[in-house]
Amino acid sequence: MANDKKLVEAITSMDVDFAQWYTDVVKKAELCDYASVKGCMVIKPAGYALWENIQKELDRRFKETGVENVYMPLFIPEGLLQKEKDHVEGFAPEVAWVTHGGLEELQERMCVRPTSETLFCDFYAKDIHSYRDLPKVYNQWCSVVRWEKTTRPFLRSREFLWQEGHTAHATAEEAQERTEQMLNVYADFCEEVLAVPVVRGQKTDKEKFAGAEATYTIEALMHDGKALQSGTSHNFGDGFARAFGIQYAAKDNSLQYVHQTSWGLSTRIIGAIIMIHGDDNGLVLPPKIAPVQVMVVPIQQKKEGVLEKALEVKGALSGFRVKLDDSDKSPGWKFSESEMRGIPVRVEVGPKDIANNQAVLVRRDTHEKVTVPLDQIGQEVGRLLDAIQEDMFTRAKAHLEAHTYEAVDFDTFTKTIEEKPGFVKAMWCGNQGCEDKVKEITGATSRCMPFAQERLSGHCVCCGKPATKMVYWGRAY
Amino acid sequence: MANDKKLVEAITSMDVDFAQWYTDVVKKAELCDYASVKGCMVIKPAGYALWENIQKELDRRFKETGVENVYMPLFIPEGLLQKEKDHVEGFAPEVAWVTHGGLEELQERMCVRPTSETLFCDFYAKDIHSYRDLPKVYNQWCSVVRWEKTTRPFLRSREFLWQEGHTAHATAEEAQERTEQMLNVYADFCEEVLAVPVVRGQKTDKEKFAGAEATYTIEALMHDGKALQSGTSHNFGDGFARAFGIQYAAKDNSLQYVHQTSWGLSTRIIGAIIMIHGDDNGLVLPPKIAPVQVMVVPIQQKKEGVLEKALEVKGALSGFRVKLDDSDKSPGWKFSESEMRGIPVRVEVGPKDIANNQAVLVRRDTHEKVTVPLDQIGQEVGRLLDAIQEDMFTRAKAHLEAHTYEAVDFDTFTKTIEEKPGFVKAMWCGNQGCEDKVKEITGATSRCMPFAQERLSGHCVCCGKPATKMVYWGRAY
Repeated sequence: MANDKKLVEAITSMDVDFAQWYTDVVKKAELCDYASVKGCMVIKPAGYALWENIQKELDRRFKETGVENVYMPLFIPEGLLQKEKDHVEGFAPEVAWVTHGGLEELQERMCVRPTSETLFCDFYAKDIHSYRDLPKVYNQWCSVVRWEKTTRPFLRSREFLWQEGHTAHATAEEAQERTEQMLNVYADFCEEVLAVPVVRGQKTDKEKFAGAEATYTIEALMHDGKALQSGTSHNFGDGFARAFGIQYAAKDNSLQYVHQTSWGLSTRIIGAIIMIHGDDNGLVLPPKIAPVQVMVVPIQQKKEGVLEKALEVKGALSGFRVKLDDSDKSPGWKFSESEMRGIPVRVEVGPKDIANNQAVLVRRDTHEKVTVPLDQIGQEVGRLLDAIQEDMFTRAKAHLEAHTYEAVDFDTFTKTIEEKPGFVKAMWCGNQGCEDKVKEITGATSRCMPFAQERLSGHCVCCGKPATKMVYWGRAY
Repeated sequence: MANDKKLVEAITSMDVDFAQWYTDVVKKAELCDYASVKGCMVIKPAGYALWENIQKELDRRFKETGVENVYMPLFIPEGLLQKEKDHVEGFAPEVAWVTHGGLEELQERMCVRPTSETLFCDFYAKDIHSYRDLPKVYNQWCSVVRWEKTTRPFLRSREFLWQEGHTAHATAEEAQERTEQMLNVYADFCEEVLAVPVVRGQKTDKEKFAGAEATYTIEALMHDGKALQSGTSHNFGDGFARAFGIQYAAKDNSLQYVHQTSWGLSTRIIGAIIMIHGDDNGLVLPPKIAPVQVMVVPIQQKKEGVLEKALEVKGALSGFRVKLDDSDKSPGWKFSESEMRGIPVRVEVGPKDIANNQAVLVRRDTHEKVTVPLDQIGQEVGRLLDAIQEDMFTRAKAHLEAHTYEAVDFDTFTKTIEEKPGFVKAMWCGNQGCEDKVKEITGATSRCMPFAQERLSGHCVCCGKPATKMVYWGRAY
């Protein structure tokens, strides 16, 4: 059993050092690894399979709302990036520049896309002529590059994978509707599929996307009480359309600017899955997104009939994503490994079980064991996976609620931020000076103005002036 | 009807100017468009949906053979690219170089991956320790950049989408097996799904991949008689392993180098689909890969009951990828548009059809019409799609065979290349000088040494020296 312990011992306890625990899980669960290129990741099979499942489900939900997938170039000529003033100011300091093609210096340097608003706008300006060409509801799955100084696997890396939707509409109302619709697609996806509860709301002007009129966000709360922005949806109004000259002939033949949106969700969300559901034994994956949902582990597998029965059990579970671990490792090692990888259900089959025509099911999330008759194993595993999915969401939701505080005065506010990791709800006057001050003193930022507003008091928690907006504040990744 | 003609008139006839016909189809079928970045494409919804179907089917076939998907970084540090001598010589002249990250100059410049052998090798060197870690059978779906001077949509662009598989094995035999296995996966996919017949064979040393011991290829023949390399699979032996130090401890504890392969198929294959199946009315898509398989077009749709019946028909065809064109365009325009987009079957439903409880099915490939009873429309459409798929392959295969010639002397050889576009089979001595001479005089290159060898004579078609290899020669895209 010495070997069995090794795998687990290598993980730092989350209560001792959460950051190190995170790094350990990422590495031991073989989700990703560092690459030779500083700040870039190698996403390994276990991590990429997770991303594939996320893509499949999210893409299906997108297409149900009329989204079409396209692919835009990787490069943005410098002149194109500069067309929208706020946008270039936001992104230019953190892009990678290509200056040479083959042996020749380029006449105009190009950046590797940090996001593709400018490319979509350039395309729409050529492609949209009449109201008949609208709406355009395009999306692309791709990688983007932002030259970050400090990086962490999944959470912040110089290159990451994401999808970016870019739409063009005839009216401001339609653009607003699409902006909110996609935020809700993200929120529902997170809650229903990833078991990640989120707060839906609007970013303040300080925190909104470079070039947007309004940015909406879903904010999740990690196990350590820090917030993670998990998906955003932006309404651009006609700002980009004016900068790029994207006009259409309306039914009355007048020339109008389009109204645009964009929205994105990235591999960052894998970080949220790890930090919300994981524990000291490693990853805990929600069944709906787990690449392997059930691991069958034979006990005393060299005894006659055990491996055969284990294979039979695997066959009976073929409606799920099931694997059988018939390697020559010890059962204890297999248990640890299966737990480290977050596989929702483990099925143990040994000589005693076979004699009693039963198997033992072990939940990854609670470690509970139940013994079930072999002839009912399919329905029992199905029931268990459903229960795990639901319970994981319920627990995460309870954690979010238990770590959401209120403050009506600045002392309570700063003390809560300092002592009670989580969200703090507080009123805000709308002045950026107060946001700056909060950040400077507490390190917390305004996460969002939630759609579900409450009136905690009539005064800004920071300056005491009249306030009508309630804001979620918190320290964030 | 003036409008109906316009769409078709805009296409150049393929017999008049094949290159222009190709460009017209790409544009009119809305597959892709030029981007602001010279030599890069915007892949539009119709083109990307085709790629998504290709990905889905190919990925499924990969996974059946044990392939796991991963994601490697976009960038390759210059020092890493230079580790394998032949490889860097092959690729360095055509890569895009990143020299600045944000506002700072990089200490070591990086290229945007033209292919990822070096990244996978760098990773494998760290990740492979023991025979237990083998084989690694990884693949990634991504975009790559090669700074080409002349570009054409799908066929040759500075950025393109592809998949690249990279494997590491304990033995040379296993690597060779995997190399051939993946070539056969490509060939079967092309023939069974894309209705694209291919010649399977090995590249000559002159034409093989930079750094490979052996390159295998599938070669397809376009409608104009030019060849298109449609997928390649490389055996690297232990060359990269020695350059990167990828070693494993064998069962006997000796330290061994791994044996590697790589294999790729790109969006170029969309060019093959266009140029093999297309006609003067536009794209013709094989049913298995067509994003829309059936287009229902109501005739006199303003007449009572027509649109309702058309919707009913669409419902009856819900087992297929079906659309209904209920726009206010004329039926003639709708027919042209559906043909331009290559939709395999058009279903016409008008008042006369409704009165007779029937519908008219029109094949895109042959323009044949059949009238079928409405209550059998599902099975009739299914039968028709199967027939179209099969007939398209049969026709393409007949075209390939009819345009494959033989030559045993150089005069016949050069005359055939000049006058009869297609493949020319001829014997070759194995000397690169003869390949160079053929290329210089005829513009043709050795496409492959087919697995199915024939002995046409005992002498090289070029120099007359003894020859044992039969080669397919041809002009190529």
